[in-house]
Amino acid sequence: MSEMDDDPEPELRADAMERFPVPDYGDLPEDLRERIVEETERAGFTPNVFSALSYKPSHFRAFFAYHDALVEDTALEREEIEMIVVAVSGVNHCYYCNVAHGALVRIYADDPLLADQLVANYRTADINDAHRTMLDVAVKLTERPTEVEEADLEALREAGFSEEALWDIASVTAFYNLSNRLAMFAGMRPNDEFHTLGRE
Amino acid sequence: MSEMDDDPEPELRADAMERFPVPDYGDLPEDLRERIVEETERAGFTPNVFSALSYKPSHFRAFFAYHDALVEDTALEREEIEMIVVAVSGVNHCYYCNVAHGALVRIYADDPLLADQLVANYRTADINDAHRTMLDVAVKLTERPTEVEEADLEALREAGFSEEALWDIASVTAFYNLSNRLAMFAGMRPNDEFHTLGRE
Amino acid sequence: MSEMDDDPEPELRADAMERFPVPDYGDLPEDLRERIVEETERAGFTPNVFSALSYKPSHFRAFFAYHDALVEDTALEREEIEMIVVAVSGVNHCYYCNVAHGALVRIYADDPLLADQLVANYRTADINDAHRTMLDVAVKLTERPTEVEEADLEALREAGFSEEALWDIASVTAFYNLSNRLAMFAGMRPNDEFHTLGRE
Amino acid sequence: MSEMDDDPEPELRADAMERFPVPDYGDLPEDLRERIVEETERAGFTPNVFSALSYKPSHFRAFFAYHDALVEDTALEREEIEMIVVAVSGVNHCYYCNVAHGALVRIYADDPLLADQLVANYRTADINDAHRTMLDVAVKLTERPTEVEEADLEALREAGFSEEALWDIASVTAFYNLSNRLAMFAGMRPNDEFHTLGRE
Amino acid sequence: MSEMDDDPEPELRADAMERFPVPDYGDLPEDLRERIVEETERAGFTPNVFSALSYKPSHFRAFFAYHDALVEDTALEREEIEMIVVAVSGVNHCYYCNVAHGALVRIYADDPLLADQLVANYRTADINDAHRTMLDVAVKLTERPTEVEEADLEALREAGFSEEALWDIASVTAFYNLSNRLAMFAGMRPNDEFHTLGRE
Amino acid sequence: MSEMDDDPEPELRADAMERFPVPDYGDLPEDLRERIVEETERAGFTPNVFSALSYKPSHFRAFFAYHDALVEDTALEREEIEMIVVAVSGVNHCYYCNVAHGALVRIYADDPLLADQLVANYRTADINDAHRTMLDVAVKLTERPTEVEEADLEALREAGFSEEALWDIASVTAFYNLSNRLAMFAGMRPNDEFHTLGRE
Repeated sequence: MSEMDDDPEPELRADAMERFPVPDYGDLPEDLRERIVEETERAGFTPNVFSALSYKPSHFRAFFAYHDALVEDTALEREEIEMIVVAVSGVNHCYYCNVAHGALVRIYADDPLLADQLVANYRTADINDAHRTMLDVAVKLTERPTEVEEADLEALREAGFSEEALWDIASVTAFYNLSNRLAMFAGMRPNDEFHTLGRE
Repeated sequence: MSEMDDDPEPELRADAMERFPVPDYGDLPEDLRERIVEETERAGFTPNVFSALSYKPSHFRAFFAYHDALVEDTALEREEIEMIVVAVSGVNHCYYCNVAHGALVRIYADDPLLADQLVANYRTADINDAHRTMLDVAVKLTERPTEVEEADLEALREAGFSEEALWDIASVTAFYNLSNRLAMFAGMRPNDEFHTLGRE
Repeated sequence: MSEMDDDPEPELRADAMERFPVPDYGDLPEDLRERIVEETERAGFTPNVFSALSYKPSHFRAFFAYHDALVEDTALEREEIEMIVVAVSGVNHCYYCNVAHGALVRIYADDPLLADQLVANYRTADINDAHRTMLDVAVKLTERPTEVEEADLEALREAGFSEEALWDIASVTAFYNLSNRLAMFAGMRPNDEFHTLGRE
Repeated sequence: MSEMDDDPEPELRADAMERFPVPDYGDLPEDLRERIVEETERAGFTPNVFSALSYKPSHFRAFFAYHDALVEDTALEREEIEMIVVAVSGVNHCYYCNVAHGALVRIYADDPLLADQLVANYRTADINDAHRTMLDVAVKLTERPTEVEEADLEALREAGFSEEALWDIASVTAFYNLSNRLAMFAGMRPNDEFHTLGRE
Repeated sequence: MSEMDDDPEPELRADAMERFPVPDYGDLPEDLRERIVEETERAGFTPNVFSALSYKPSHFRAFFAYHDALVEDTALEREEIEMIVVAVSGVNHCYYCNVAHGALVRIYADDPLLADQLVANYRTADINDAHRTMLDVAVKLTERPTEVEEADLEALREAGFSEEALWDIASVTAFYNLSNRLAMFAGMRPNDEFHTLGRE
Repeated sequence: MSEMDDDPEPELRADAMERFPVPDYGDLPEDLRERIVEETERAGFTPNVFSALSYKPSHFRAFFAYHDALVEDTALEREEIEMIVVAVSGVNHCYYCNVAHGALVRIYADDPLLADQLVANYRTADINDAHRTMLDVAVKLTERPTEVEEADLEALREAGFSEEALWDIASVTAFYNLSNRLAMFAGMRPNDEFHTLGRE
């Protein structure tokens, strides 16, 4: 008898988003169920973004495949990725991403205060100069993309980032401009757990 | 002797983007080469977005997988998708997407003037009321996502869109907020062909 | 021997603000010391705004006298005042006020999630309709004060607020437009304690 | 028989603000009456801000106590304070403050044209370089407070302002961001006299 | 001996604009001299806009010919034209136009306070409902022209304006969007006289 | 028998603008008819701006007289003028001017791609450094005229522009801020021909 048999099925919270229905876990395709089990085991709960995106399995697959490419094949540290995500979500005012990725940046950067700083104004964050430059460009690409020019890429190079890292900074920024808008349109709500994770 | 032997290999244009190097077609992984051959045969030329994203194959795969999900598993007509893309790219001021998707909207909507209307100001476009509502929401989600609320979804429902169509409108909008920023950061340039396609 | 003699003196943290020096507690005028003792006993620590404003005692007195008038002679509930403060600070992107008043709104509203909602986008907050109207007006008066007109006051009246409550909503909003700017200019930093207070 | 007996009582104008009732002078607490007599004797008329704030005596006291601290305990010249007030009110578009403090800046700077320049665009004002830097920072703190950083304070120091003057510039700016919003919400109207004072 | 011989020649003020040289009156073409004599006799001084535009006679002729068409062949009252000019110049922050046309609106509307109201925020002006609608549209066309739609024209019609008046409202608004930018670029300065005209 | 007799009369398109009626050619004053004949012969069709402005002959005359002064008495090359027009119209989002002047910039600059670049984001255009500086100033004067200062004029001088060219750059920019708003208010529609002219 396998351990799997003992585990209760993950439960998708009906309140994971306000504006579309969340399906039942049991009705999901096998590959979504596997991913959700995996995430649930890792986090100790099912992050609501998995419940919400289950609404449309083809989009679930595409969204998380892109996400996985961004965090697995990257010239950036994971804490750098999460710093970008929270700074971008802060200026876009996305409740879900502020809180869920706020937890991640606290954990990956091992800093209980950093998320609240980045949500408010990344210029107040206790970060090094290279990360400040990284967030200057990420926020500019978010708010005023027409004004991004060669000089911005040069500033990143001078801060020590490789060419691939430049691409990755832009890609993470771009992806969370997608993610913020999808979460805001659907009315996604962060799990209660995210509000306190990593604050101790 | 196979047919493949007769066909010249597609050539990735070095000027497809200004700020990152475009790799040689021959150096690409097999799956990228197959996709590029397919696109080249369809269009008659290799659209520069394929050349540009070849810079990082894992992102090429993720980007086009998401794109494909949006156009293949959808409650929207393809012309509706392209209308959203051009209206969003117009307010984001993305040269690549204005021109490349401008060609697509001319073709799919069979209207030689529509792209220039949507790029300038979607409110001037010769479109029906349902499409006007669709673009009102897409542009609001692009420019002022904090202000999107239940009333915006309700307006879409009243215009005749299904629940899945609402999700799809938001997803296309969100994805091109990613795409615009990536293209603008990388300095992607549309192929000359796109400027005139569908104008006759 | 009085109890006072036993108590250690409050200590003003040198890192309470980044851009001006924080004086020593022992050098402060008697009335500031009394207020600081009182606040320290109430909170269990000395909130950094008291340390920061000690830089200029005449402004310390004026700032807290206005604050006290707003919370003591008011037609609003204290939780309503703190909701306005956090919504206003969220759109102004004030790190100090987001965090310090975020703690207060969690405590006064007895809601561990409300502050993160209000910081991100007050439209996502789990609040009643009257409070939604209250925050609509407070944020409009913050961001687009030229557009506030009689209709906004009428909306507040229809939501059940008295004439004095209208004045108080505007006054709290206006005062935190002062407070946010002073905190941001001085580089005030919230005490670590505020990040977690009221989250349990 | 005292001189007081001869003086007519000041009269609070009912049209001092549009959206809240102005009380009768005779019904005000003694300390407000004394302040109003004093201001009326100084100006030759009762400035409408005193009539308007009489609506709520606890706020009258707090507002003017803060105001008095800003003009009495300061490293700035009074004309510098009024220059900041008018430049800030100009970008916030506050009719009351433009006109009432426009009169004050004409008088304190002994310049009949300065107020109209500051209301329109402080960059057109005939002022020295130090005052230009002072207004650059005041307007930035008003319009884009997230972007105020150490470099702005350094620019003020290089222009010759002391540390205390930096604090005072920020405090005056912050206070009139309060004052503008309260005046605009209440619909305060400047006395006719202010429109012409100091123009000769 | 003609009367002309007795009159002193008008003098063009060298300080009429900051960024281009003002020519000598005597060097101007005959038609410009005649217009300047005429304006100087009417006003009692030579308005600086005539001195400034003398820099390039072909533009002088074009500018004033358009201006004359707007005020001479119109469905609007002259006071309505000047109300639009000052409201538009207020939101564009043009010092020259605020002050010079501020004088004109005081004179044509016979209201010493109206200009200061319109410069600050046209919503505070003591004007009738039709004029409020007129200025709503003029300011919208100035600040957010993409959003002007049929409903705005309909609002003007409902306020009693004729079709030609609609065209004229738009034309005056458009022309002062030209005029404001030219005056701001050239650094035009209003004559001292304009600051006080019509204030008595 | 004169050649004139053979020529068909130009026809003013009723759909040249959406919000005002277009008069019949035969009802126009002689001078408008002559100008329209001339333009029709030059272009091979009657550009809709002539049909639209025929609504009010006095404005037709003033508008085209100003236009003619700008293109005939100028220190700029015609292609420079059209580059400014399209960059300005792009940020103002004017459909008519984007398309009609897009055709002109393609023709005068002999570049089939330039218009689409300028409409999207002038920073992406293939232009020399002097023209980049020229458009930086034109767009700044369009979007943020309060911030144009001596340094902007100095940048133009350093790029090689004469004093008169500076005036002309500002004048063209200013005029198309007029033209864009008039076209957008009236709902002017570009002739179909403009969409393709100069693209070969």
